[in-house]
Amino acid sequence: MIVPAPNDETGAERGFASDNNAPVHPEVMAALAAANHGHQPAYGADVHTARLRELVKAHFGDRAEVYPVFTGSGANVIGLQAMSDRWSAVVCPESAHINVDECGAPEKVAGLKLIPVPTPDGKLTPALLDRYAWGFGDQHHAQPAVVSITQSTEHGTLYTPGEIAAIGALAHDRGMRLHVDGARLANAAAALGLPPRAFTTDAGVDVLSFGGTKNGLMFGEAIVVLDPSAVRGVPYLRKAALQLASKMRYASAQLVALLDDDLWLRNARHANAMATRLAAAVARLPGVEIVQPVQVNAVFAVLPRDAAERLRKRYRFSTWDERTGEVRWMCSFDTTEADVDAFAAAIAQALG
Amino acid sequence: MIVPAPNDETGAERGFASDNNAPVHPEVMAALAAANHGHQPAYGADVHTARLRELVKAHFGDRAEVYPVFTGSGANVIGLQAMSDRWSAVVCPESAHINVDECGAPEKVAGLKLIPVPTPDGKLTPALLDRYAWGFGDQHHAQPAVVSITQSTEHGTLYTPGEIAAIGALAHDRGMRLHVDGARLANAAAALGLPPRAFTTDAGVDVLSFGGTKNGLMFGEAIVVLDPSAVRGVPYLRKAALQLASKMRYASAQLVALLDDDLWLRNARHANAMATRLAAAVARLPGVEIVQPVQVNAVFAVLPRDAAERLRKRYRFSTWDERTGEVRWMCSFDTTEADVDAFAAAIAQALG
Amino acid sequence: MIVPAPNDETGAERGFASDNNAPVHPEVMAALAAANHGHQPAYGADVHTARLRELVKAHFGDRAEVYPVFTGSGANVIGLQAMSDRWSAVVCPESAHINVDECGAPEKVAGLKLIPVPTPDGKLTPALLDRYAWGFGDQHHAQPAVVSITQSTEHGTLYTPGEIAAIGALAHDRGMRLHVDGARLANAAAALGLPPRAFTTDAGVDVLSFGGTKNGLMFGEAIVVLDPSAVRGVPYLRKAALQLASKMRYASAQLVALLDDDLWLRNARHANAMATRLAAAVARLPGVEIVQPVQVNAVFAVLPRDAAERLRKRYRFSTWDERTGEVRWMCSFDTTEADVDAFAAAIAQALG
Amino acid sequence: MIVPAPNDETGAERGFASDNNAPVHPEVMAALAAANHGHQPAYGADVHTARLRELVKAHFGDRAEVYPVFTGSGANVIGLQAMSDRWSAVVCPESAHINVDECGAPEKVAGLKLIPVPTPDGKLTPALLDRYAWGFGDQHHAQPAVVSITQSTEHGTLYTPGEIAAIGALAHDRGMRLHVDGARLANAAAALGLPPRAFTTDAGVDVLSFGGTKNGLMFGEAIVVLDPSAVRGVPYLRKAALQLASKMRYASAQLVALLDDDLWLRNARHANAMATRLAAAVARLPGVEIVQPVQVNAVFAVLPRDAAERLRKRYRFSTWDERTGEVRWMCSFDTTEADVDAFAAAIAQALG
Repeated sequence: MIVPAPNDETGAERGFASDNNAPVHPEVMAALAAANHGHQPAYGADVHTARLRELVKAHFGDRAEVYPVFTGSGANVIGLQAMSDRWSAVVCPESAHINVDECGAPEKVAGLKLIPVPTPDGKLTPALLDRYAWGFGDQHHAQPAVVSITQSTEHGTLYTPGEIAAIGALAHDRGMRLHVDGARLANAAAALGLPPRAFTTDAGVDVLSFGGTKNGLMFGEAIVVLDPSAVRGVPYLRKAALQLASKMRYASAQLVALLDDDLWLRNARHANAMATRLAAAVARLPGVEIVQPVQVNAVFAVLPRDAAERLRKRYRFSTWDERTGEVRWMCSFDTTEADVDAFAAAIAQALG
Repeated sequence: MIVPAPNDETGAERGFASDNNAPVHPEVMAALAAANHGHQPAYGADVHTARLRELVKAHFGDRAEVYPVFTGSGANVIGLQAMSDRWSAVVCPESAHINVDECGAPEKVAGLKLIPVPTPDGKLTPALLDRYAWGFGDQHHAQPAVVSITQSTEHGTLYTPGEIAAIGALAHDRGMRLHVDGARLANAAAALGLPPRAFTTDAGVDVLSFGGTKNGLMFGEAIVVLDPSAVRGVPYLRKAALQLASKMRYASAQLVALLDDDLWLRNARHANAMATRLAAAVARLPGVEIVQPVQVNAVFAVLPRDAAERLRKRYRFSTWDERTGEVRWMCSFDTTEADVDAFAAAIAQALG
Repeated sequence: MIVPAPNDETGAERGFASDNNAPVHPEVMAALAAANHGHQPAYGADVHTARLRELVKAHFGDRAEVYPVFTGSGANVIGLQAMSDRWSAVVCPESAHINVDECGAPEKVAGLKLIPVPTPDGKLTPALLDRYAWGFGDQHHAQPAVVSITQSTEHGTLYTPGEIAAIGALAHDRGMRLHVDGARLANAAAALGLPPRAFTTDAGVDVLSFGGTKNGLMFGEAIVVLDPSAVRGVPYLRKAALQLASKMRYASAQLVALLDDDLWLRNARHANAMATRLAAAVARLPGVEIVQPVQVNAVFAVLPRDAAERLRKRYRFSTWDERTGEVRWMCSFDTTEADVDAFAAAIAQALG
Repeated sequence: MIVPAPNDETGAERGFASDNNAPVHPEVMAALAAANHGHQPAYGADVHTARLRELVKAHFGDRAEVYPVFTGSGANVIGLQAMSDRWSAVVCPESAHINVDECGAPEKVAGLKLIPVPTPDGKLTPALLDRYAWGFGDQHHAQPAVVSITQSTEHGTLYTPGEIAAIGALAHDRGMRLHVDGARLANAAAALGLPPRAFTTDAGVDVLSFGGTKNGLMFGEAIVVLDPSAVRGVPYLRKAALQLASKMRYASAQLVALLDDDLWLRNARHANAMATRLAAAVARLPGVEIVQPVQVNAVFAVLPRDAAERLRKRYRFSTWDERTGEVRWMCSFDTTEADVDAFAAAIAQALG
C-alpha cells in the first residue's frame, strides 16, 4: 500500500517514497538523444529494438525473446496471459504487485483468477505452492497454470537461485509455468552478486518482467520470454493490452543503454548500498524497528506514529501497513550519501 | 490496414509510411531534458502534470480534465469505458482505429461491443447513426451508449464543426455520449483553421483522445474529458488498462511542450502542407488517382501494382486496401519539401 | 429485433411471435418424468448424459462430442471460445444472433471481436468471407479465427450442404474454424430432407450449437464438437460461462427424447409445414409482401403499418425491421392448421 | 473441493455426495406439468413469473425484485456485477463458492477481483472485513465494492441475523454492498427457525442469490434484489451472462411451487433433520471426528483414509480436504431415515 506523503510546492524535494520518484539517468538521456534522428519503422522494426534482442540473448540465453512495453503492470499482465488459458489461475504471494497494486488488471484485462498466498516476507515456497495449487482437472475450479513470484520481493527480500529453482521444479512437475515479476531484478542481481540469468533462465523461470523504470529509465520494461514453448500470442496480447509502442525505438534505446554495459548493475548496486547505509544509520535508534532484512534498496521499519507524522512533514515516504505503522523507505540510483545521512538525522530528530 | 514496406539496413531512411516513423521534435526533447532533475512524485502528482491541467483548460474550457496515457489505443479504450456500462455498445465507422487497428482491445479489455458502420470516407452521419443505433431498452441487445468518431479520419478526411455538432445532438438525444479519437486532432485544427475547442467542446463532444505521438512526441496521448458528467472512474480505469505512467512527469512535460505555445499547430500545419504539396505534384501523373480529398497530412491514391512495387523498393509506405491497390502516403512534422519532391519524382519514375 | 406484441391477461393465447412461446412437447414431459427417480451424479456423470453421448455419435459421427447447456447463447459463446484465442475475431453475418441478440455476450464474456458482414438474406458466402477476413499475422488486428453461420438463418433461409462446404473449405484454408449456430438445425434438416450430418459433419463444420428449446424442449441446447481437434477446454469454458447444469440428467433426458427417435424431425417438419401453409394463405393478399423465401418455420412479410397494428391487437408477433415495417410470423411444433387459418383470416381482415 | 466417488453402473444409487444428486420433488414436477399448456410470452413476460414476483415481495418485502436464472453461479456472478463497477473488488471467505467452485467466472465473466479471506468455518466477521477491505480511493487498488457471504456456509455453518447485520452495517459504512449466496438459504431459515427476510432484508442484505436446485427443483435459482438502489442493469447483465431463459415460465413455476406454500421449508427442514440424525449416529464412533457444527444438512467429518476408501466403494460422497482427510456427507430433501441408518451402519463397518 503506497500512501504518498504531502509535498512542498514544487514537488521536487528528494525523498524516499519510491524509486520511481527519481529522474532519468544521464546515460539514458544521452541514449535517447542519440536515437533521435531520422525515420525508423514503428512498432519494433527499428534498429534499437534489434540491438535489444541481441543484448537480451547475451544476458539471458539464446532462446530469450524480448518484447518492450511501457509499464511493469503491462509486462506482468501480458506475460501471464501468454502462459495461460481463459480458464487459468495464477498462484502468487498475497503481497504481489499483481494482487494489490494493479487495480485488478489481471482479472479485468485477462480474466485471470489470482490465488493469493499469505506470507510473512513476500516469498512463496514449494510447500505453500503445493497447498494452494489444487483442483487440477476439476471443471469447477480455475486451473492453476502459472506461479508468479517477485524478485526482489515487494518486502525488499530475496530468493536464492536454489529457492527459485525449487519452485520452478514443482511448478513444472504440476504442469504449471513460472513467472517472475522483476521490476527490481537488477537490485536482486546486485545483491546476490550473480548475473540475472543465474536465478532466472538457469533456475527454470519461463517468463520474466524485466524492470527499467525504477532503475533509471524514463519508461520502459521488457517481457523476456526465457522458454518460448511457454507462451502463445505475445505480439497480439501486447497490442490488445495497449502496450505496443509506436515509436518503439525510444523504449528499446533506453533498455539498450541499461543492458549494453553495466548501467543496470551500477544503478542497482548504488541504490542497494544506500538502503544498507540508511538501515545501519537508524538500526539502533530507540523507537525504530527494522522489520524485514534489508537485502536490496528498501528499508521496512516500524516507528511511532507521531514520529512518522513529524518526519513526513519533511520527507515523502510510504506507509506500508496502516494497522502496524510500518513504513517503507526506498532508495534509488540517484540517492546520495548526503541524502541518506540527512534523512537518518531527520528520523532521529522526529523520534525525539 | 498498414503494411510496412521493406527497408534498408538501418531502417533509417525517410519515408511516407506513417507519422509515427518520425523522430521527436527538438523542442520536445528540450522539454524532456528540462524536466529531468530532482525527484517528483509519481503517478501524476508532479508539477508538469499540474501545468498540463491548466493548459488543457485553457485550450478546451474550464471543465476539461486531462489524464495522460501512453498510447492512442489506451486513450480510446479508457475513454470509451468511462462513458459506458458493462452492457454497452459503441457505434463507430467501420474504418475506425478502434475497430480495425487495436487488436480487439475494446472488446477484450473493456467487454464493449462495437457496431461498425460502413462509410465511403470514414465519416459517420446522423442518418447513419440513426440507422445503426437501435434496440434501446431491449435486454437482448447491447445498449448503444457511445458514438465514436475520428477527427481527422483514418481516410484523411475532416468533419466540419457543424457535422460533429449534429452527430453530438442526435447522440445526446438518444442518451448516448460522443467520443472523438483525436490521434490527429492537431492536423484537423490546422486544416480547419480553428482552435480545437471549436469542434470538440463547443460541438458537444464529451470525451476526446488527444494525440501527441504522431505530432512530434516521443510518447504521450491524453484523455481529455470535456464533460465530466459523462464519465466515471477514469483514474481506476487508466490504471487497470495498464496506462498509468509512474514517472508521469515525462509524458506531461511533452504534452506541455506541445500545447504551451503553438508547437502542436506548427507541426500539424507543416505536415498538412507537405501532403498538399505531394498531392499537387502527383495529381496529374498518368496512372495515379487520388481517391480521398487531401485535407490533412495524408494522400490516399491508387496506382498500378507494378508501379507501387517498384516505388516500394525505394520508399516505405502503406498499402491501404489490397483489393483495390490503394496506398497511403503520410507526411509528418519533419517531412521536408525536398523529401516530397524526391518522392514525387520517384513516383513519376516508378510509373513509367 | 424482437418486439413482443401486447398480450391478453393470461398471456396464454396462441400466437406467432416465436417458437419459444410454445410449451413443452408431451413426449419430452414424459421423458422428464421418467428420469425423475433416485439419485444421479451431478454435472454430467449420469446415465442420461451417457445415452446422449451415444446418440450424438449416431447422428453426427463417431468423433462427435456433446456438452449439454441451458441456452443457445450459452452454446454459441462457449463454442466460439473453445475454437479461439484471446486475440481472435469471429466473422459472422450482421444479422447473426451472436451479433444482435446476445447483449454483447461474445464480447463481454469471451472478449471476442465480431466482424459482422452485411447480407441481404442472412447468408455468408466464400466471397464475403474472403473480403472480411483479413489482417492475418498483423499484430494490430484481431485475428480471424472462426466463421460463424446460422442454419437455418435468422431470416428463415437455408444453406445447401454445398454452400456450407464451400465456406468451410475457405475457412480451413485460411486456418479458421467453422461454427454453426443450429438453434433451428432440425428445421433446416427437415426442409432439406437430409440428415443433420450431411450439412454439418460432412460439410466441414467444426462445432455446432444444436438447438432444442425452440423445437419442443423445456430447456436444453447442446454444444456438439464435430472435430475435437478444433477445441480446447470445453468443460472449463462451460462452467466459467455459467452453463454447467448440476442436475444435468434433466437436460440430457430431454435431448435424448428429441434424438432417440424422430421427434426432432416430426416437430420441425410440422412447424415448417405450418409456415408454408401460412405463406400460401397470405401470399396473394393485396398489401402483403413476403420478403424472404419461406424455407423453414418463419414467414417474413411487409404489410402496411396500420394493418400490422390492427393485427397486433389480436395476435402476438414480432416486428423485424421498424424502418421497413417488416414483421416475422413464426410457427412452432404445436401450431395447428386451425391456428394458421384463423391467423390468415385475421391478416386478411386487418388489411381491410 | 468436490470429488465424486466411483459409482455403480446405473449411477442411480442413493448417496450423500450432494443435494444436487437428488431428483425433483413431486410437487415441483406437478407444477411443471400444470404450467405446460398453451403459449406464454418468452423471457419473463409470462403469468408464472408475474406470480413469482408477488411471492418474492411477500417473502422478502415490497421492494424486492426477482430475476430467475438457471444456476447458482449465474445468480452470484450477475448479482455481483449489478452491484459493482469495472474497477471493483469483492471481499469473500476463501472457501466461498464464488472463489473455489465457479471456475473463475467472477473474474472471467465480470472482470471482478476477489479478495479471499481465510476463515476456519467459512464465516466472515466485521473484524476480518475491516482488515481485508482497504485502499479505498487508491487508483492502484481494485476498489472493494461488495462483501459476499454464504448462508448457510460452504462448511455447513450459520450466521445469526445479528452477525449478518453487523457485517452489513460495516459494509454500508464503507460504501460497500452486501451480497448473500443463498444456495442453501432455505436450510438456514429452517435451522434458525426464522423467515428468510429476518436475516436478509431485515439484516441489511442488498442482493441475494436464492437457491432452488439443491432444495428440490429441476433447475432454477433467483437473483433477489432487496435494495433496488444497490443495482444497475440486471436485465442486461442476466442476458449477457447467458442466464436469460426463453421459456422462463418453467423456471418461475418451479420457484412458485417452492415459495407458494411451505415446500421450501419442508424440504429444508427434512434435509437438516437427516444430517442431524446422521451426526448423532456417528458422533461417538471411534475414528470419526465431526469437525464443524452440524447446523444444516451437511456433516463434515474426518475419518481414517482407509476407512473412507472402504466406505466410498459403497456410497458416493465428497472429499473436502485431501490433506486432512476431511469428508462431506450431504443430505437432501429425499434422504430417508433408512438411508441415514444404513449409511451410519456402513460407516461403522468401514471403520471397524
